[in-house]
This record gives sequence, structure tokens and C-alpha cells, in this order.
Amino acid sequence: MTNHFRQAIEDTLPWLSSFGADPAGGLTRLLYSDEWLETQLAFKKRMSESGLETRFDDVGNLYGRLTGTRYPDEVILSGSHIDSVVNGGNLDGQFGALAAWLAASWLKETYGPPLRTFEVVALAEEEGSRFPYVFWGSKNIVGLANPSDVQNITDAKGIGFTEAMNACGFTLPSSPVPARKDLRAFVELHIEQGRVLEANKQPIGVVNAIVGQRRYTITLTGEANHAGTTPMSYRRDTVHAFSRICCESIAKANAHGDPLVLTFGKVDPQPNTVNVVPGKTLFTIDCRHTDADALKAFTAELEADMQRICHEMEIGIDIDLWMDEAPVPMDVGLVQQLTALCEKENLNYRLMHSGAGHDAQIFAPTVPTCMIFMPSINGISHNPLEETLIGDLAEGVKTLALMLHQLAWTE
Amino acid sequence: MTNHFRQAIEDTLPWLSSFGADPAGGLTRLLYSDEWLETQLAFKKRMSESGLETRFDDVGNLYGRLTGTRYPDEVILSGSHIDSVVNGGNLDGQFGALAAWLAASWLKETYGPPLRTFEVVALAEEEGSRFPYVFWGSKNIVGLANPSDVQNITDAKGIGFTEAMNACGFTLPSSPVPARKDLRAFVELHIEQGRVLEANKQPIGVVNAIVGQRRYTITLTGEANHAGTTPMSYRRDTVHAFSRICCESIAKANAHGDPLVLTFGKVDPQPNTVNVVPGKTLFTIDCRHTDADALKAFTAELEADMQRICHEMEIGIDIDLWMDEAPVPMDVGLVQQLTALCEKENLNYRLMHSGAGHDAQIFAPTVPTCMIFMPSINGISHNPLEETLIGDLAEGVKTLALMLHQLAWTE
Repeated sequence: MTNHFRQAIEDTLPWLSSFGADPAGGLTRLLYSDEWLETQLAFKKRMSESGLETRFDDVGNLYGRLTGTRYPDEVILSGSHIDSVVNGGNLDGQFGALAAWLAASWLKETYGPPLRTFEVVALAEEEGSRFPYVFWGSKNIVGLANPSDVQNITDAKGIGFTEAMNACGFTLPSSPVPARKDLRAFVELHIEQGRVLEANKQPIGVVNAIVGQRRYTITLTGEANHAGTTPMSYRRDTVHAFSRICCESIAKANAHGDPLVLTFGKVDPQPNTVNVVPGKTLFTIDCRHTDADALKAFTAELEADMQRICHEMEIGIDIDLWMDEAPVPMDVGLVQQLTALCEKENLNYRLMHSGAGHDAQIFAPTVPTCMIFMPSINGISHNPLEETLIGDLAEGVKTLALMLHQLAWTE
Repeated sequence: MTNHFRQAIEDTLPWLSSFGADPAGGLTRLLYSDEWLETQLAFKKRMSESGLETRFDDVGNLYGRLTGTRYPDEVILSGSHIDSVVNGGNLDGQFGALAAWLAASWLKETYGPPLRTFEVVALAEEEGSRFPYVFWGSKNIVGLANPSDVQNITDAKGIGFTEAMNACGFTLPSSPVPARKDLRAFVELHIEQGRVLEANKQPIGVVNAIVGQRRYTITLTGEANHAGTTPMSYRRDTVHAFSRICCESIAKANAHGDPLVLTFGKVDPQPNTVNVVPGKTLFTIDCRHTDADALKAFTAELEADMQRICHEMEIGIDIDLWMDEAPVPMDVGLVQQLTALCEKENLNYRLMHSGAGHDAQIFAPTVPTCMIFMPSINGISHNPLEETLIGDLAEGVKTLALMLHQLAWTE
């Protein structure tokens, strides 16, 4: 079975990756671009040829369907997004859609048609790389997309969302597309985009939750001073204040332990020159946790710590919390089922959380949802160097197929 | 005497400041600009009218001379630079030249001609604000300027140094101008550009040394990682490493105490975005001290600390020491003489070092040199808001006059 999928991946992944191959490296397949349309049409044709009924929905999500013989109105859905970031890799997104098709094809060959309806989905968009909107594909399936949110947005070249959509033969719905009522489960296979699986030499991750995120922009205001003529005791140095905040907070994050992560990704001192004590420093905080209360409590502590440090140093502080996304747990029943399956099949798996966002988090609040991770070599993604060993990819598709078999091909 | 100088300053400072007044604020008087030439010519005319023999040297340093009746070949020199930074204040530089002239005029009125020759000097350039060269004025007086160093440099508009010089009527010497052999002392009056005098409510600073400076650019190389999918223990976070270095080093600088100062003025993480652990961070260090050995020992300790922290965190470090200027002590005899004078006259003075560079440091190695500081309101300089209370300016000129009286008007 693993050998079958290894061969199937080698036969199809290079072909699918040829659509949107970027001369500058990797894959660039932005929503409603020519490359995007070519990909969806080619994938549609190939799925049709393999015996699936294919269709687009109003916004360009592509489906490949095997109608259930016993429960035709109960749909098990699997796939991921077909779009990529600029110069992205050839796994993030598209491999989840490809894998759902490979799994379904094998299941159909092996067991005939499913009892429940099974659908592959190649979601139109997740990355937000062309237009300032994310999860356009999945949000339209679960009734969370409002056309008015995109009708006036444009890409970096000034091309409107609706214009790009029309060029691909789709029309922006005049009102929100209602949520599908027939979905009984959504299963997403995706690369980890981290190196936890790799470091632990495990090919399979069973995702139990997608982290919540809080993002802040902090502005410290002290006093710009001459680096030579201002004795240390006269200074209100905002880079020093930032450093104290960063050190204390990361020490606290380390003490708290997984799954909490804390990142000070951006630091912009002013005037940012060698011989001036920086009078102003802007920096960002990105904090994630799978537990909403823990995330809230930890960041509240950080906020209090920052206030205290700045008070001590006579530095003004402005704290702007501009992103506050709650963690999304995966469906407990599906996670248990997947875990039991891994145990039974003797798969080398790890129960873990996702530190990145995925389409699964859009489905999970209303559709029983689970995710399967495969390792990322060196944890790299969103990069032409994104890669996973072929054996691990095959193991991922196999696990997906076994799970889909239980969900759609058995009672 | 103080009242006399207060009036004299009010009568002349606004006039001198009118040359190069910038519509955008403050004073912009760059070397060999029209404004620069106008200033020097106006000051020359005014000094001539007051009875001083005036002349330019080859590079545009302006002198006003009172020939000594007893020791005509021994010259006591006082002044400062006439150029300014872009949108600078009206004290940094020019006030030292103006003050030397006001002091000389009063001394001549009061005591007649000096025993030793006295010269006011309005140095052509100190700031390096137009061309990438500093101390052009003073270096040409003490034989330290090499014409070949400037002959091919240009300003931001592409105008060559020699071209600008020619436009003002000066010609680049074909070989270094030899050092003047007749100088017996140089005395420079300048604003502090810090707030030590202000904070201590003292109008006069007697400078005993100009700090040495070491400037570094440090590059830390870790690993850029996804802020969500990379557990804390997997990170090689260069902003965290920078913060540890900054905190430890500043704590050490505070423990070391004055006159050491340490500044982390510039921090440039990469990619500098909220959701990526910064894989690379460049930052600067500016460290100053009046004692060469202490400066060297302290920065050597910093270097070792940085190496240790980076080793612990598995982060690469490149340490580039690109400025290493030795401290310059003022002449011990002149400092004692000036201190004794302040004591005798019951002036409220402070013995202190200069944290900024000044023309005095160019003279000091070969000419007995001392400096007198006046307070800067809020420590501000290089800014249109640069200001000193008129009473403090007058006190500064009075102190200068008393010192020059001892040096040139008495045996």
C-alpha cells in the first residue's frame, strides 16, 4: 500500500507542480491567476478521467465526487488549498488535495464505491498571497465568507478581486454562499511546516488542535539622546527597555513550556543610528497556545511585565493587540479514531498541535474535522526548499486512505 | 563683566546666526557653501572693523589677530568651527568663534594689546555634514590633513570637494599644509551637548578629557523559523540573543559607572516581520570612556560576553570593530590653571569630560589645549531646539576672557 502510494505520488506530484512553476524558484499560484486556473482545470480533467464526478462551486473550489451507495447525502470531505504563496513549495496546500484524490482512487479500485459520499476538494484559496483576504475557499463552504468583504479589494498590481474572478469564469455571489449542510467530516493532510516530527523521527502527526494567536505591536517612547554626552543614569533608552522585555518574556515562555511559543519578530528603533540613544522603539509580539485561557493568562502577564519594566525605566508604552484568534480544537471523536487507527496499523505517529493556521480551523467549528501532518525537512515551508521525504509523503497518503476508508467506505 | 558679555551676545549672535538660517528650521551652513562663505566674509569684516587683523589660510580657516607687544611669535588661539550640521542649532561651533572675538574685543578695550599674540579662529569645518571628512579645519592647522584624502570626495549632490572649495575662492593645497609652529595654546568654548551641567545647575564645565570611542557592527546569524510551528527549544533566535547581549552589557556598563557610556543605537533584524523568528540580526555598539585602557578592557569583556552568549545559543557572531579612537586628555597645566581661575573667581564650575568629539582633540596632541563647556538646555544639540540660557552663555564668555587674559595679556 505504501509502495502503491509512493509510485502514485511520483506519477502525479511533478505533473501537478508544473502548473505555476516559477522561473524564480518554487511555485507561484495565486488565486484566480492563469496558473491557478490551469491547475484547477488540469486537476478537474484528471479526476474526471479517473472516474470522479467533478464540479466547481461558485467561487472556484473544485470537487471530485464518489457518490455513496448507502448514504449518498452524507459527505466525507478531504483536501486542502490549491493556491500557493509567491515562490512557495509544492506541498503546502496542493499535496492535501492530490493525496485525497490518490486515496479515493485507491479506495475505489480496492473496495468499489463508498457507502457515504466522498469528495475530494481543491480549495480555491487559503494563503492570502494575492489579495488581502485569507481562507476564501473554505469560508465559502461553511458560510463564513461575505462577498462584500472582497468586492472592493485589489492585488498589488491594482487588479480587483471580482475582475480576477471574472477572468477565470467565476462571478462573485451577490450574497454569502450558505453553509453546506451535507458535510459529516473534513480530513486535511498537510505538511507540518515545523520540525517536531523530523526531530522525533516520526512520519505521522495527528493534530489535536490548531493554536490560537495573539499579535501585538508595542511602541516604547523614551528620549533620543547623544550617545556620547548622556551618562547612563540620564538615559531613557527604549532599546534597552525592549531588551529587558524580550529577555524576561522569553525566559517566562521557556519556563511555561510547550505548546506556548513567543516571538519578537520585528524591532524598529528610532532613529536607528549608531551614536544616538534610541528614543522610540516599535516591536511586535506573536504568542500562540492551543489553550485559550492559557494564552490569555500568559499574555496578560506579559502585558503587566512590560508595564512594570517601562514604569521602572520611565518609558512610555503603548500596547496594541491587533490579532486575537482563539485556538481551534480538532474533533475529539475523529482524533481518537485516527489515533486508534495509527495504533492498530502500528504507524509511528505523534499526537501534536498545529502552530500554523490551516483550512481545518475554518471547518472545525461546524464540521467534525481532523488533520494529519507529515514531516517537513528542516521545518522549511513557504520556500522553494520545502520538501518531505517521498516515503513520508506515501505514509501520509496511506494514513489518510485508511481514515477515509473508515469514514466513507465502512458503516 | 557678565552683563557686558550678555549685551554683546545679544548684539551679535542673532546677526551671525542669520547666515545659513534654514527655512526648514535652525542653521544649515555646510563647508564651502554660499552660506558658509557669506558667514566667514561677514565675520571677517566685523572682526576687521573691531581692530583685528584678519586673514584666511589656504583652506578657509578665518583668523582675527591681535599681535602681541612682547611675544609676537607666541600665539594663543581660541575659537571653534563655523560650519553646522543640516538644520543644526546656532551654538554648536560658531558660538566658540564668536565668543573668542567678544572676549578679545573686551580684553583689548580693557587692557590694550596682548603681550602674546592672540588669534580668534573660525575653523572651516568640523561636522563632516557635507563631505565624508571631519575636522578639515583643525587638521589643516596642525599638519594632519592630507589633500589627497579629499580631492576625490563629493557631496550628496555629486559636487566635488575641490570644485566647492574653488567656488569659494580657495585652492586645494598640492601637499599637506605644515603644522603651525607658533601656537602656544588652544582654548575652545563649546556647549556641552549633554545635560550634566544643567542637571547639576552649573554654568561652567572645565573639560579634562575627550572620550575615546569604539564602535562596532555585530552580525548574529541563527535560523529564520516559522513563529508558530517552531517550539521554543528548537529556535536559534537572533533577536533573543541580541536582547541578552544588550541587557547584560548595559548592566555591566551601569556597574562600571561614569565616565563609561554604552549605546546599542541600531538594531536590524531579518526578515523583521511579526511571524518569523529572526534568523539574522545586525546591531551596533558605541562605547566611550576617557581612559584608553579602561575602554579597551571593557569592550574586550563585552566581546567575550557576546561570544559566550552566542556559543550557548548556537548562534554565529561576527564582530566588526570599525572605529577605535583613543581618548584625548586636555593639557594638565591648562586644566589646573582654568580650575584655579574658576576657584578664584568663585565660578560655579564642574570638572568633567566631553562625551562628544571636538576640534580640541585635534589640537591637543601637539598644542597645549583646554575646553570650557556651557550647559545645553535638555542636552539638545544638532537640532533647531539647541539652546543655552543667555546668562550661561555670558558666563562662558567671561570665563574664556579671564583665561585668555591670563594666557595672552599677562606674563
